[in-house]
Amino acid sequence: MNSQARPISVKRIADSTVRRLSAYLRFLEDFEQRGLTTISSEELAKRGGTTSAQVRKDLSFFGSFGKRGLGYSVPELAGRLREILGLGREWRVVIVGAGKIGAALAQYRGFRQRGFTILAAYDNNPDKIGRTLDGISIRDIEQLERDAVREHPDIVVVTVPGEEAQRVVDRVVRAGVKAILNFAPTQLHAPADVAIKTVNMAMELEGLSFALTNRD
Amino acid sequence: MNSQARPISVKRIADSTVRRLSAYLRFLEDFEQRGLTTISSEELAKRGGTTSAQVRKDLSFFGSFGKRGLGYSVPELAGRLREILGLGREWRVVIVGAGKIGAALAQYRGFRQRGFTILAAYDNNPDKIGRTLDGISIRDIEQLERDAVREHPDIVVVTVPGEEAQRVVDRVVRAGVKAILNFAPTQLHAPADVAIKTVNMAMELEGLSFALTNRD
Repeated sequence: MNSQARPISVKRIADSTVRRLSAYLRFLEDFEQRGLTTISSEELAKRGGTTSAQVRKDLSFFGSFGKRGLGYSVPELAGRLREILGLGREWRVVIVGAGKIGAALAQYRGFRQRGFTILAAYDNNPDKIGRTLDGISIRDIEQLERDAVREHPDIVVVTVPGEEAQRVVDRVVRAGVKAILNFAPTQLHAPADVAIKTVNMAMELEGLSFALTNRD
Repeated sequence: MNSQARPISVKRIADSTVRRLSAYLRFLEDFEQRGLTTISSEELAKRGGTTSAQVRKDLSFFGSFGKRGLGYSVPELAGRLREILGLGREWRVVIVGAGKIGAALAQYRGFRQRGFTILAAYDNNPDKIGRTLDGISIRDIEQLERDAVREHPDIVVVTVPGEEAQRVVDRVVRAGVKAILNFAPTQLHAPADVAIKTVNMAMELEGLSFALTNRD
């Protein structure tokens, strides 16, 4: 397998492409666990609900992979995807908002497996501050900037109510954070060098109401 | 504004398109609240982090909208998007798995606003069965099929552990459910006429580790 890294501009890579890369990696890891060593783009496509042309296009952004007619080497492609997705290292995550969603995320086991370490949760509720969520301490939101200077979180997960979310974003951006995962049902603004992803539960359900409404 | 519905095949519409339609609707509703009556594709694009060509392409799947040079009528386009997304009616939702994520979803206020009514949650834990989550009762998972025959849920949200998820899907599919929102970190299989969307929290974080790793 010939895998040449070339400089890419993250701006050019669509969100949906990154999402498919994450999905491919999961299928490859499943293959690895089952002891399989090669996979075709057709097989990857089938498992991902897409086309083999799409698989090849998605991977082509990052160099050349696989040998014509032989498919991809499972361990090599998985390793390369982990590298592309930045999964070879620890990412330091804090959660702002220790409500229901914040608590569910703090206890989500899938994060640590992927190298996402949750440093702490923050809240402004005195009844919550000082308590822990599965070993993750809930700190006073007033400490947010002070702690950020010391601990350098890479990613901040925002699970505060919609009307408080922008203020939290402004604060963590000023503290130097460059990546935000937003669960608040609101549009957030940040400088161009800050990556924001919004997870909107109602929007996920709308994908299904769309499918149910537009059935063949 | 000239809005002709034409028959579309849901299969042809990519998930990412539907996601953008949901986002456009949110911006339009924000515009409506502020009393604005027209919006250009440039403005919609800017708010959605996309291009005006993409906006026009996304909308073109569903007929013709807007007048050249005049932009879109906010209330008309919002109404049409609600129709396309199937938001004019009530969708009956049940949650299977009353763990942390299930509980957070049961109490998520954004669903009801969009017409998604949570009928019940299900669990197999005797300590949870019979209790309520913000007024939503937790029922014995043994009742799932019996209740489905009577209540006809449209959408089932699966928040059980990964190793139990496929069994739950098989059961609800047999009970006639055609749409599943999956939070279990596993790939699920269902007949082609069943829509499955998977929300994977680790995958959302990977979108950010990708952005942090591939910065310009």
